[in-house]
Parts: sequence; C-alpha cells; structure tokens
Amino acid sequence: MGHNTLGENFCLTIFGGSHSKVVGGIIEGCPQGIKIDMDLINDDLLRRKPSNKYSTQRIEQDEVIFLSGLKNNTTLSSNITFYIENKDVKQEDYTKNLNLFRPSHCDYVYYLKYGQDNLLLKDMASARNTAIMVVGGSIAKMCLKQYGVKISSNIESIGGFDYEKEQDEIKKLLEDVYNEGDSVGGKIRCEIKNTVKGLGEPLFDKFSAVLAKNIFSIPSVCGFEIGDGFKRTEKKGSEDLDNWNNDFSTTSNHCGGINAGITNGMSIVFHVGFRPIGTISQKMKLISKDGVIEQREFGGRHDKCQIFRSGVIVESVAAMTMMDMILMNKTNK
Amino acid sequence: MGHNTLGENFCLTIFGGSHSKVVGGIIEGCPQGIKIDMDLINDDLLRRKPSNKYSTQRIEQDEVIFLSGLKNNTTLSSNITFYIENKDVKQEDYTKNLNLFRPSHCDYVYYLKYGQDNLLLKDMASARNTAIMVVGGSIAKMCLKQYGVKISSNIESIGGFDYEKEQDEIKKLLEDVYNEGDSVGGKIRCEIKNTVKGLGEPLFDKFSAVLAKNIFSIPSVCGFEIGDGFKRTEKKGSEDLDNWNNDFSTTSNHCGGINAGITNGMSIVFHVGFRPIGTISQKMKLISKDGVIEQREFGGRHDKCQIFRSGVIVESVAAMTMMDMILMNKTNK
Amino acid sequence: MGHNTLGENFCLTIFGGSHSKVVGGIIEGCPQGIKIDMDLINDDLLRRKPSNKYSTQRIEQDEVIFLSGLKNNTTLSSNITFYIENKDVKQEDYTKNLNLFRPSHCDYVYYLKYGQDNLLLKDMASARNTAIMVVGGSIAKMCLKQYGVKISSNIESIGGFDYEKEQDEIKKLLEDVYNEGDSVGGKIRCEIKNTVKGLGEPLFDKFSAVLAKNIFSIPSVCGFEIGDGFKRTEKKGSEDLDNWNNDFSTTSNHCGGINAGITNGMSIVFHVGFRPIGTISQKMKLISKDGVIEQREFGGRHDKCQIFRSGVIVESVAAMTMMDMILMNKTNK
Amino acid sequence: MGHNTLGENFCLTIFGGSHSKVVGGIIEGCPQGIKIDMDLINDDLLRRKPSNKYSTQRIEQDEVIFLSGLKNNTTLSSNITFYIENKDVKQEDYTKNLNLFRPSHCDYVYYLKYGQDNLLLKDMASARNTAIMVVGGSIAKMCLKQYGVKISSNIESIGGFDYEKEQDEIKKLLEDVYNEGDSVGGKIRCEIKNTVKGLGEPLFDKFSAVLAKNIFSIPSVCGFEIGDGFKRTEKKGSEDLDNWNNDFSTTSNHCGGINAGITNGMSIVFHVGFRPIGTISQKMKLISKDGVIEQREFGGRHDKCQIFRSGVIVESVAAMTMMDMILMNKTNK
Repeated sequence: MGHNTLGENFCLTIFGGSHSKVVGGIIEGCPQGIKIDMDLINDDLLRRKPSNKYSTQRIEQDEVIFLSGLKNNTTLSSNITFYIENKDVKQEDYTKNLNLFRPSHCDYVYYLKYGQDNLLLKDMASARNTAIMVVGGSIAKMCLKQYGVKISSNIESIGGFDYEKEQDEIKKLLEDVYNEGDSVGGKIRCEIKNTVKGLGEPLFDKFSAVLAKNIFSIPSVCGFEIGDGFKRTEKKGSEDLDNWNNDFSTTSNHCGGINAGITNGMSIVFHVGFRPIGTISQKMKLISKDGVIEQREFGGRHDKCQIFRSGVIVESVAAMTMMDMILMNKTNK
Repeated sequence: MGHNTLGENFCLTIFGGSHSKVVGGIIEGCPQGIKIDMDLINDDLLRRKPSNKYSTQRIEQDEVIFLSGLKNNTTLSSNITFYIENKDVKQEDYTKNLNLFRPSHCDYVYYLKYGQDNLLLKDMASARNTAIMVVGGSIAKMCLKQYGVKISSNIESIGGFDYEKEQDEIKKLLEDVYNEGDSVGGKIRCEIKNTVKGLGEPLFDKFSAVLAKNIFSIPSVCGFEIGDGFKRTEKKGSEDLDNWNNDFSTTSNHCGGINAGITNGMSIVFHVGFRPIGTISQKMKLISKDGVIEQREFGGRHDKCQIFRSGVIVESVAAMTMMDMILMNKTNK
Repeated sequence: MGHNTLGENFCLTIFGGSHSKVVGGIIEGCPQGIKIDMDLINDDLLRRKPSNKYSTQRIEQDEVIFLSGLKNNTTLSSNITFYIENKDVKQEDYTKNLNLFRPSHCDYVYYLKYGQDNLLLKDMASARNTAIMVVGGSIAKMCLKQYGVKISSNIESIGGFDYEKEQDEIKKLLEDVYNEGDSVGGKIRCEIKNTVKGLGEPLFDKFSAVLAKNIFSIPSVCGFEIGDGFKRTEKKGSEDLDNWNNDFSTTSNHCGGINAGITNGMSIVFHVGFRPIGTISQKMKLISKDGVIEQREFGGRHDKCQIFRSGVIVESVAAMTMMDMILMNKTNK
Repeated sequence: MGHNTLGENFCLTIFGGSHSKVVGGIIEGCPQGIKIDMDLINDDLLRRKPSNKYSTQRIEQDEVIFLSGLKNNTTLSSNITFYIENKDVKQEDYTKNLNLFRPSHCDYVYYLKYGQDNLLLKDMASARNTAIMVVGGSIAKMCLKQYGVKISSNIESIGGFDYEKEQDEIKKLLEDVYNEGDSVGGKIRCEIKNTVKGLGEPLFDKFSAVLAKNIFSIPSVCGFEIGDGFKRTEKKGSEDLDNWNNDFSTTSNHCGGINAGITNGMSIVFHVGFRPIGTISQKMKLISKDGVIEQREFGGRHDKCQIFRSGVIVESVAAMTMMDMILMNKTNK
C-alpha cells in the first residue's frame, strides 16, 4: 500500500500535484449504480474556492474531467479516475526562493527527507490536493444518501473568537490580518447525522481513530476532538454521561456519537483546529541550506484565512471515512 | 490485516482480553539484537497500575511471560510473543448486569455490532489491553535507545485544573470524586526528544496522522493536539511561526516538531485528553434491550482518576509509533 | 501489517514456533456463532501427523489449547487465540550442527538475512507452523459449512508415479527411499466444491492470485496450477473452452472454476507440487560460514515422504483463502 | 488498500482501462534520482505489441504520457503518473454481443459479480492493462540497475512443443491455428540474475509467494513453477539438493534461487504457463442471461498466440516484485 491512498475499502488515491500538469484521483470501492451529480461536485469545489478577499486570489479552474468508471454519469464498479488541470501555475512565484527554507513549512523537512528542495516535490504538500479530496468526498456523500447519512460543517471560531457571537471582533481581525499581510487560524465543527450504527472496530480501527488519522491528513490541522472533546477532561464522570432515552438515543451527546470507538447512532460530532497559514506577506526569516538566515518577503498568493475553505474539506474526509467504515463493517456480518 | 494490530512495520497484535485466560501480544518487526530489560518493562507496567486510592483497587498481577522471540533476553528477529495471566477476574462483578446497557459505555454498541451483550466480547474494549500496549511500548523504547530517542510524559491537568499550579484544587477535587464515587478526566502532555528527522509521509501517512490514529486507540481518549494544538487556531500566522536558529533548530516549537506532517528534529510534543471513566459508583440510568430504563448502581472496581495511569500508555503508543515510522522511512532510502 | 499473517479479512497470525515453548495462532474475522467441533480439528491435525513409517517419527502432541474467542465452543466475534505446546523438542538434534549450512535449506538464507544462524530463528521456517495452519483451516471449514462449500484433496503422484494407477511402483520407491534414508516429492490435487460465485477481484486480487500466494506459503511448495494447469499451454483455444450447460455450469472444467481470476461456480480445482524434503539421512555436503565444505550426516528426524501430510495443509490454506475472499467480496455489495 | 494496486512498497496502481479514454498507472515508492530512459520503455512496449501475424492485428498506439513525478526525465520521489490514450477502440466489436456470455471468459463472472455485463466493466479484465504493467516494469528495471539485477525471459514451449528444438512443429502449428482462427497456449521461462540476497519473509511473504501472486495477476496465467518446479516432485531428495561451491553459490539450481522462501543469491528462475486465448475466430457456444445457448462467431481482434507478447509482461511483473521486496527488506535492517 502506498502512502497516497486514503481508506482501505472505499479508497481515494491522489496523483499528480499542484505543480504537475494535473492533480487527480482514483476512487476504488465505490458502490455500483450511484448517480454522480456533477453540479454537487462543482458546488463542493466552489465552497473550497476563494470566496472573499481573505482567501487566496489564486484563480483555480477546477473543472473535473472523468477518465473512467462512469457510464451516463453512473458508477460502474470499476475505478473512477478524474483529474483537474493546473492551468494557472505561476512557477516563478515558487522557484525564486527555492534555496531558502521558509519557517513552519514543508521546505526543510522535504529537504531532510528527499535531499533536495525541489519545486515538484512540493506537489505533495500542496493544499491543491484538497480539491481532489473534495471530489472524492462529494462522491462519497452521494453514496451515503442511500443510508440517509448527512454531513454538514460550520466555522466555530476564527482567531479565537466565537463565529456566532463575536462577528464584529472577527470582522476587525480579518481586516487587520488582510492589511498586515498576515494570516489567522480557526476551528471547524462537523456533524454526521443519521449515522449508520455499529461502525468501527473495538481495538485498533476505532471509528474515532480512523477519522482522526484521516482528518490529520488535511494540511494545517493541529487538533482534533470527538464530541465535547477537551472539555470532557474538565468534568466529572457523573456530568459526562449521556443518559438514555427509551429509543436508545441519549439526552445529551457529550461523546459525539461514539462509544468505545464505535458509532452509537447519535450524530457524530467532531472539531478540527486549523493553524494560521505559515506563508504570509510579511518579511520572514528564511534559512539557506548552509544555515544562513535572511529576512525577506516570500511572495506568492496565499490564504489570509483558510478556514472559509476548510469546512468542505473536513466534510469530504468525513464522508469518505464513513463510506470506508461502512464497507469495513460488512466484513463482520 | 486484522483490526487487532497496531502499526505496519513495527506491529503489535493483541490477543485474548481481560475476561479470557490471558491477555497477550505479538510484536513483529522488532530489530534484532535488542537487549530486553525486564526491569524496565515491569517499571512501565507499575506506572500503569493503581498507584493511589483514586485509581481502581483491582489488583492486577502483571507478570509478563515471554513465549518466543528472545534468547538470553535479546531479540532474535522472529516474532516476540508474550502474555499476562488474568488471575484476579471477579466475573460476578461483570455478569450480574449483563442485560443492562450502561450509559457512555461499550455495552450498547457491542450489542449493536455483535448482536449480543456477551461478557467475553467486552474483552476487546477492556482497559486491560493497555497493559499489552505498555509492554510493546517498553520494548519499542529499548529499540529507540540506539537512535537516542527519549519519550516522557506528564499530567497537564485534572478536572480542568493545572497540574503544576493548582495542586490544592486538584487535591480537593479528587477527595470529592472519591467520596462521591465519581470519576474525573484529565490531560496528558507527551514529549519525544532527540527525534529522528524526516519521518512521516507527505500525503496520507503523515507522522501526525498515524500518531493521532494510534493515540485514539487508547480507551477514553477524547482529544488530540500536536504542538500548541488548538491554541494555534487563536493566533495570527506571524505569531505562530517557529523562527530558525542557524543549526536548523527553531526558537519556538509551536508546531510540536512536525511540519507538513513530517518530523523536523525538534521535540515532538502532543497533548491527549482523557474523558472521565463512565463507570462510576453512583446510581446510573441503565437500559435493557427492551428499552426499559432502570436506575441503579453498577458495581465493579473502576478508576476514580485514570489519568495517573494514562501517561505511560501514551508514551508506549508514541514509542511504537516512532519505531513504526522509522522502519517505514527506510523504504524511502 | 506484519509478515506472520495470512489473509486480510479472515486472518491467521502465527506466533511462537517449533523451538519456542509453543506454536500458536490468532484468528481474526471469524464470523460469530460458529460451533467449533474439537473432534474435527483433531481429525485434521491427525491427518497432518505421521501416519506411517515414511513420515517423520518425531512425536508431536498436538493438543490445541484455546485461550480466547470461544464460549461454549462457539465463536464470539473476538479474536480466537490458541496454541500447541512443544513438548518433545530435542534441541540437541538441531544445535549440534548450528554452524554448518545444509544444502537447499533455510540455514544459509537465514544467516544472510539475520546475520546469525540461530536455533530459534529457524522457528519461522519450521513445518511445525503448518499445524497452526491446519487448526485455522479446520475452523475456516466450519465457517464454510453455512455456504455449503466442501474442500477435499488427494495425492496425485509420488516421485512422478500416478498415485491411482502405479501403486506398486510407489510402494517400491517408498521402500527404497526409506532404506536409503532419502526422501521423495509428490503432487496434491485439491478441489473446492459448491463454491461461492463471484469471488476474487478483477485486477490484482484475483482469486487465483491470492490462492497462489497462500499456497506458496506452505513449506516445500515448488509449483501451483489452476484447473488443467500447464496442460493448457499445450492446447488450442478451441480445445480449452469450457462449454456452457443451460444452467451456466460447463461441460468441462479446464479452467478449474476460475475465469479472469473470479470464481464461476464450478469446482475450484488446483494442483500443488511439493519438492522432496531436503534434510535426508545420508551424508550431505554442509558448508561453514567460512566456506569450508564438509561431508557428513546431519541427523534429526524428518519426513521421508511428506506428501501424506500435505493434503490437509493444502485444504486448510484453501479453506482460509475461501473465507477471506468471501469476506472481501462483501465489501463489493 | 484497493484491488488495483500491485506491491506494498514499490507499488503500481492501474487506472482507466481498455474501453475508457485512457489506461494509466501510478508508481509509488520509486527511489529518487533514477534516470528514466524513454527508449527502454518504448522498447519494452514494442516487445508487448503484435510482432507477427499470429498476434492480434489491433493497432495500439502506445505512447506513454507522463503527468507527474519526473523532472528532466529523472525521478523525484513523488508519485509517477502516466497514461496511454486509447485511440483505436472499435467499440462496436465489443458491444454487438454484450448480452451473450462467451465461454471461458470474464463475461459471466462479471455479470455474477457486478450484476451487469457492461462494456466498460470489462476494462478491468482487458489485457490492455498489461501495457501499464510493462511501463511499471520497465521503470523497475531501471531502478534495479544500481543493484546489478538483470531480468530476461524466453519462450519455453508453444502448444507443448519445445521452442528451441521443435521449431518446425511450432511453425506448422501456428500456421494451422492462424488458418483455423484458433489460438494456442505456451510457456515462458524467466530468469533474474545477480539477485539481491536475503529477500522474502520466512512465513507469509516469502519471495516465491509474493511472486506467485503477482504473476497470477497477468491475464491467462494457468501455472507457476519456481526452479525445476513440478519436476522436483518426481525426484528423490538426494537428487534435488543443490550442492555448495566454496563461495556459497551452488553447483545446480533446482530450487530456482529460493530456499525457504528467501533468495539465496543464485539466479531466480521460474516458469509461467499461459492458456490459449479463449476468444477465437470460430463459432463458439455463447449463452444469454436467460440460459439460451447460441452458436456463433464472436468477432473482434484477438491473439492467435499471445506467448510472443507474454515474456516482457512476465519480466515486468518480476522486476516490480524485486523492487518491492528490496524495499520490504529494508525494514528488517
């Protein structure tokens, strides 16, 4: 198994990258006869695209071309292969600083790992791969319809401010960040409703564990919580119990729909933290291979606040994880 | 690949369980010629055992018996198989309530998944499996010595109180919890020093992602953060950057030793949240298969505050993950 | 995934070995509620044991002890762990020649791979592991009953003589081999009747491919054929076609029940070649680590004609493969 | 892990198919800095193409387009993605008989497995995928150069006639087969020289076992032998031993370079049987979904004697297996 594949039964393998001719994906394990709604895919891709001045101005023409696996827009059981062309790569933006490592970025670790700080290697780290995750997730969502599963997400906070209650503070923060050429982090809440029950394995493929791994595959993720998450560490057991209703639902959902690693039928709720994007339009200290530190601006076009794009990516990974775990669970029957 | 195995190259497969005759493990991929220090294993197992009145009073005779893989206490390259006998299982504690599902516990989801609420099935969910993780981790630590890697952990908070600064509040809380038959959650910080650089794969086997999955395999984990974790979501990019020193170390370590999913040589720092144990010595609402809710005490011996035992388990999983990623990385050379 | 595990969904992990205290196995993925008939397991183990003077005289007390996974001899969905003690290991037989490599044996390649010619490492190569395969296979056969699948085998040839038609020649050959302290090879035919249809994946997990791999895991296997096997290479396409009956069965079964890698419902028929055991009671040329060749007898107790024991091992691997592929196929639905 | 991937460390994932717009592949795990010689790839692809009137007349424009992973024709460590366009698909050849199942073909088993006999599903069974295997193998051969490994193959027999000694009989047979619109099987011998020693795992990832699986992934393979193969079943142990030379090479190579599943440094020799292609230009009995049998010619362009194309495919799978096992072996160090 290579390291470009997400999932074991419903799998997405990513190929190409942001600086190659294309970035693409192969979906295996997709059930047969699923109607693929191209509009829904495009809607999800649009949600991932810059929607305001706080997101990157890089224009990405995310037209998805399918190469195999569909007939009359319906899945066939064979591999579903698709790609998006990279039309708007301004290579000079990236190449001019090739010999300098940015702080908190992939430059140095790629140099460590591969012995060169090559433009094309950075393909693999690029957030452009998340467009492929979104296509995979969009198709997974279509598969999940037959189970009634619905996945949604919302921004919980930006820069530490509550997204619901502190809109004014956020507005000011974003304006500052924009003017300063800075960036800012945020937090996403995701909810999977009408979940299939009994998903996840007791010991080492807990639903929560597989989801955690997949979510941490999204660039810039720095934290992951199930249910009430870290707040549960502050509570007594008596406060943390989700009490039964007669229909086996519970009066609260502190556990986020997962007990002992297995889905219990309540909504799966989880939270994902995104750090602020490291590439900012300010002077940064860059370091050369020889250990010489230089202060300069790096350039390129990057997100001021990626969190507006992150929700749909989180949903997509959640949808693929659900499909994968549903298929895994079939081997238990 | 079954669901009882942690890791791909350095793997621990768990067998048996708390209500079987034994609980045991098989380690594959352990390098040859590693001297196994039984005292260190026992020290780690002791750290996992009840150390005070706030932990469960169940006495566990954790003598590790090795069946294969060692000669003169040195590893041979073949599988290392070991087990711990279950001498002190009081089955009646568990059986008397078999037809009632506890809240926030494995009872209902196991019933959903396996169609019976069987005593022995609960083997798989038992915290007793963590003793096997500790043995595996202890051996992994011995393997890591040759790389200079050192792993340590500390309690960060209990019930929301800072473990360093709010000892008095914690003391009172624990006393209350003990007297009330309640439990309480907490948070562990773990640090891997002198880490091997360049570990982790760029796309779907990021070091952070694999570690997240493995940590979520520990029972009761509800949250996981790398480096400054969720605090990073509150910051601007300019505040979050880890600036270079001339030797490629950084002046801060907000990222917790991982950039773009790959280790950069700084200490790997992460945080793990543990929810309060759900089985408390208070009246709880239990539900029968028929949906009848009954309020009663469940009994059995359980942790008031498991966090005292959790550090060594977190370290163990971290150690096995490090070894696994070191071996994975060899295929890149 | 370690290298001690056969199968992905119905898996057998082997632990210990012939020179450890025990050799044992863990079965994962076994369906729930399967009644385990210990007599059938013992019958299969007896078929693997020396049945005549042509097989090794080493007495193996193959009593299977179960440690987990059963209640009232019925499977529970958790891991099924079992072992066989090694009561009768005469270590001196093996240790006295530790510094000499036998021809056509594991000694040299283990030295190459692990840098030492250690007694315990040879655990892994020992035919004793096949006892564990037989227990796994016996349990797989019990699982297959619900599908109506039946697996049988027969000896096709010994030393090149047809087992049905040339019994006299075989009798004389075996007598010669016995008197000369030599060994002889043979061929097994295995048939899986009432097979589940549609098993196997089109590209890289063809039923035939997975079966080939698993069969080649049996020590001393030197060849594998599906259906008419190599005889098909001598034929014209028009002679090789299996013509249809109206019920989609075929008038012949040249393809051995597999088309394009997928089971078609006809009996799966395959053939397995076993080379003669290399350790014979004659003077052999042994070589030391220093490249000094010495002619001497090696000693130990070994098979004159293992083929009498091989059928049940082949069946066992076939049974586990069937169960694994049945479970794999469920993820397609 | 999906079922479209060959290998665990050096992996080839195939996408698309013969009736899609493209058929392509992704290579992961390819070492960095390997110079890719496009001429060698094209040479290997030519060896797979129809070379005479006995092979299919279908013209395949096998121009390989690389999408990622190379810079200046040198590997970068990232995924290598490539494809071949399908320019010359005559869909009508295939579609006209869609509702009839050919004997000994994928039609019926695909119908069983996927519930429809769709043109595009047959993508997966198509021999066109072998072009992708050849590209993967050609690149693997380039990687193997640094180890000095050389892989070659030759036709051993066609229609049962020895390819070296019975050329006249073969010539006549092929003429007959051509005139009759029939096909014929054959046998390939493959040899891997200067092999890396110590490859393969003792228990369940034996070199021989992994190679057997991979070889059986090639369409139409019906048998596989290592070394002297089935001939060894006819011999006594004393005749089968490969005696030592002082340099640890052996005076014979009955075992085909593999002892106990692990490479010993002698050439790896193996034999592969190919059945005659089932689609012939004669009247065949076809069956409808309703069980009505009809005798008619099927049409399309197919191989009279694929064995001329098979050698390079076998070599390619052998080369990818070698690279995969070399990388796997690194995790043992």
